[in-house]
Amino acid sequence: MPETVLVVLPSPTVADAPADPVRADPAVPLLRVDDLGVSRGDGIFETVNAVGGHPQALGAHLARFARSAAMLDLPTPAAEVWRRAVHEAVAAHPPVPELLVKLVMTRGVEGSGRCSGWVLAFPNADATRVRTEGVAVLTLARGYPADVMTTAPWLLQGAKTLSYALNMAALRHARTKGADDAIFVSSEGEVLEAPTSSVVAQFGDRLVTPPCDLGILEGTCQGRVFAWARGRGLATAVERLTVDDLHRAGSLWLCSSGRLATPVRELDGVPRTWDAALHTEVLAHLLTVHE
Amino acid sequence: MPETVLVVLPSPTVADAPADPVRADPAVPLLRVDDLGVSRGDGIFETVNAVGGHPQALGAHLARFARSAAMLDLPTPAAEVWRRAVHEAVAAHPPVPELLVKLVMTRGVEGSGRCSGWVLAFPNADATRVRTEGVAVLTLARGYPADVMTTAPWLLQGAKTLSYALNMAALRHARTKGADDAIFVSSEGEVLEAPTSSVVAQFGDRLVTPPCDLGILEGTCQGRVFAWARGRGLATAVERLTVDDLHRAGSLWLCSSGRLATPVRELDGVPRTWDAALHTEVLAHLLTVHE
Repeated sequence: MPETVLVVLPSPTVADAPADPVRADPAVPLLRVDDLGVSRGDGIFETVNAVGGHPQALGAHLARFARSAAMLDLPTPAAEVWRRAVHEAVAAHPPVPELLVKLVMTRGVEGSGRCSGWVLAFPNADATRVRTEGVAVLTLARGYPADVMTTAPWLLQGAKTLSYALNMAALRHARTKGADDAIFVSSEGEVLEAPTSSVVAQFGDRLVTPPCDLGILEGTCQGRVFAWARGRGLATAVERLTVDDLHRAGSLWLCSSGRLATPVRELDGVPRTWDAALHTEVLAHLLTVHE
Repeated sequence: MPETVLVVLPSPTVADAPADPVRADPAVPLLRVDDLGVSRGDGIFETVNAVGGHPQALGAHLARFARSAAMLDLPTPAAEVWRRAVHEAVAAHPPVPELLVKLVMTRGVEGSGRCSGWVLAFPNADATRVRTEGVAVLTLARGYPADVMTTAPWLLQGAKTLSYALNMAALRHARTKGADDAIFVSSEGEVLEAPTSSVVAQFGDRLVTPPCDLGILEGTCQGRVFAWARGRGLATAVERLTVDDLHRAGSLWLCSSGRLATPVRELDGVPRTWDAALHTEVLAHLLTVHE
């Protein structure tokens, strides 16, 4: 695992006695097979993009990490320890333009009552091509109704858990159909999110993203896009969208920390265009240190 | 981790060059943090009960393991190597009445193209109390319609994956409501399965379980119960059931390899009884070596 930095948190939660994060060799196994993160996908994660050595929107990521923990009845992550571990991992890594920093906390070894936590930093694979050329996207049923988060919280919609097998399967399915990515849709036909990113649609001088109460993640990159938009005089709104709305939109982006704002160049086989000047501007903003 | 045996499979799939399973110390970490089984819950598992040293229904478990692998586009598990690993783990363990043997295969370290595989054997926690006293069960929405497996295969319903965070959350939710376990119900109100077991309902001299095309697992213990039932002159049927049907049933069981046939003593707060003689008989059968 070249150019990868691993930092382990002996005390990842506020319930633990404080202990400093420690460097470890990422090529050496860290986890027992009876860690519930392994055996049950029972844990949470965040992926932060460190641009020029600065972890972008780390506060927003840590806030979402804590929300995910609460939804899984996990102890609250010790935010300051995680923050330190992130900065240690970034500082220990050879300088690269973009460094992905993954934070993971699991329920730990079964019966131990102690969570496992670590931070892994590795160079962001060059996403320049998809960021500039865009991606072909297939809409796929998520199978759930729009009210699933409130009516069935045990389904953990809206939590960023390690149980991502279906997100990966949805991406594989999209690829077998010649697409690059997917957008999930509720059983009523409402636009939700992509398997690893958020949806932002442009309608004239308004940017719109679907509401989190549909059981989707609050996108950190989407939040940065909205902050930028408001700063340059665009309106932003959190509103329900249908697939037809997406077809009517001007620019349409998938937003994530790793790929930033990636334009959708084809939706369900229908080619689409985007505002190139606006896109260049938002990308430049996302690659600039702000928070 | 007292009385636990770990056997690692260097070559878990038919795509690998053959290599013998090897014993390893279960207290020593086995997995890197970038194993996709950890980072994405991207893998499959089975839990076999070895009674008096005999792994029950191992053929049925291995067949389901292979079906789960296919649904996740994983390479086919090398059945004979897994069989050997299971027998090695059982043979290496001090004799106990019931030994749970967990088979796990993950997509492996990201980018390696090699699956990770292991078998972990540990004594079955004494399930005598729940098997004889029964469990209180809450029905919970699974959020999906009954046709989800055929209309949206990327949701992986019917595959036994490591992405079990929601199954664990459903059990925690049931416990906060004073119940011991849950039964998932489709959005149309059809009975599906429990988070870690299958549902079998008795109507006179017929036993009924819901069909797998609802996107549920084919229960290995349920299969053994049905085989026993037919052998003693009961009829068996795979039919759709509603929660009302469950209330009308005679005995109602949750069936799994670990807890075998556990009677439901309360459903959604309504106390229920079961045929004690029949229950004693089915438990005795399940604890007898047959296959």
